[in-house]
Amino acid sequence: MGKRNTRQRILDTALALFNEHGAPNVSTNHIADELDISPGNLYYHFASRKDIISELFSHFEQHMLEVTVLPDTQLPNAEDIWLYLHLIFERQIQYRFWYRDLNELSGSYPALKKRFQALLELQQQTTQHLINQLAEADVITANALQRATLTRNILLTLNCWLGFSTITPDQLAQNPNLAVWQVISQVAAYLRDEEQHQLEQLARMYLQ
Amino acid sequence: MGKRNTRQRILDTALALFNEHGAPNVSTNHIADELDISPGNLYYHFASRKDIISELFSHFEQHMLEVTVLPDTQLPNAEDIWLYLHLIFERQIQYRFWYRDLNELSGSYPALKKRFQALLELQQQTTQHLINQLAEADVITANALQRATLTRNILLTLNCWLGFSTITPDQLAQNPNLAVWQVISQVAAYLRDEEQHQLEQLARMYLQ
Repeated sequence: MGKRNTRQRILDTALALFNEHGAPNVSTNHIADELDISPGNLYYHFASRKDIISELFSHFEQHMLEVTVLPDTQLPNAEDIWLYLHLIFERQIQYRFWYRDLNELSGSYPALKKRFQALLELQQQTTQHLINQLAEADVITANALQRATLTRNILLTLNCWLGFSTITPDQLAQNPNLAVWQVISQVAAYLRDEEQHQLEQLARMYLQ
Repeated sequence: MGKRNTRQRILDTALALFNEHGAPNVSTNHIADELDISPGNLYYHFASRKDIISELFSHFEQHMLEVTVLPDTQLPNAEDIWLYLHLIFERQIQYRFWYRDLNELSGSYPALKKRFQALLELQQQTTQHLINQLAEADVITANALQRATLTRNILLTLNCWLGFSTITPDQLAQNPNLAVWQVISQVAAYLRDEEQHQLEQLARMYLQ
């Protein structure tokens, strides 16, 4: 097995274990055991668990940056937004260890916290831009206070749904379309009645 | 210093340290050090960190149970709801260690997770009941899908705002009134225009 291959297998196994048990509960020995390699072999590739977490975060960050920027040429329709959000939640599910222990990992790794905050600012700008576009095109009716409040709530749902829905008694986390709907419904409340009705038809189709 | 006094001081100090550093990062030795007592003295009162966490959780649970049940005799007005939510967020701030590491603590202590889930179910029932009351009194206009979606989003905001807002770049966590508004605004979106306007006046007053 080549060096590059082992390095990648360490990352894949660490990600799977972090997602399942939470990164704070998985040691480098645990990862080496799971791969059936020696701790020395693992240390040849990564000096510490922190290095593994940092590299996984970089991959996550790269994926999120790719999906967070909307093309601002034209106003997206409801289905565009649905698919766009679905893509974001898919990426989050792939790297859910980060959201599982958001506060703990941000506290332990200040450099990653800063980069995550930069990601949040980008999410905020994109969300705000989209809401302003919808308001300017008269698709939604919302004043400045409503738009700011809506943006904050959408950011909360985007970043906390995954962690929270694994704790709710009804296991909502198994349905990414529901996550999308929990975001979109917040904007839907400001649509005209007719468009609201159309969007709910769309939601019922996806949520089936 | 009496036994009862020491026991209470251990709980108070543990709560302060858990809130500041996160429960997973605070050992019983750390707590004993901070109190300037021997580890043996601490173990006389609590056999393990788990016992301290369990007792603090019981206090938190008791407080939350007290504030989660609404009197169902009459329909509360906007100010009643505002003050009621403010009380909930105050309690949460007091025991914020639980929300900081919600997934980690729920995973480590399955018995507490079950009790927290029971609390979530109660929150859900109370929220649903209130939203139904508002709909029946024609204060809000929302169909069954909208009411179910709204209830889920309110539960998310109630339980995740505190943890998330400490990570956002703008330090939103310092303002419990903003947390209240992030919940109430979600219901406000379904009010008639005039009531929506009145509620926003109230919000602007509290948010100043």
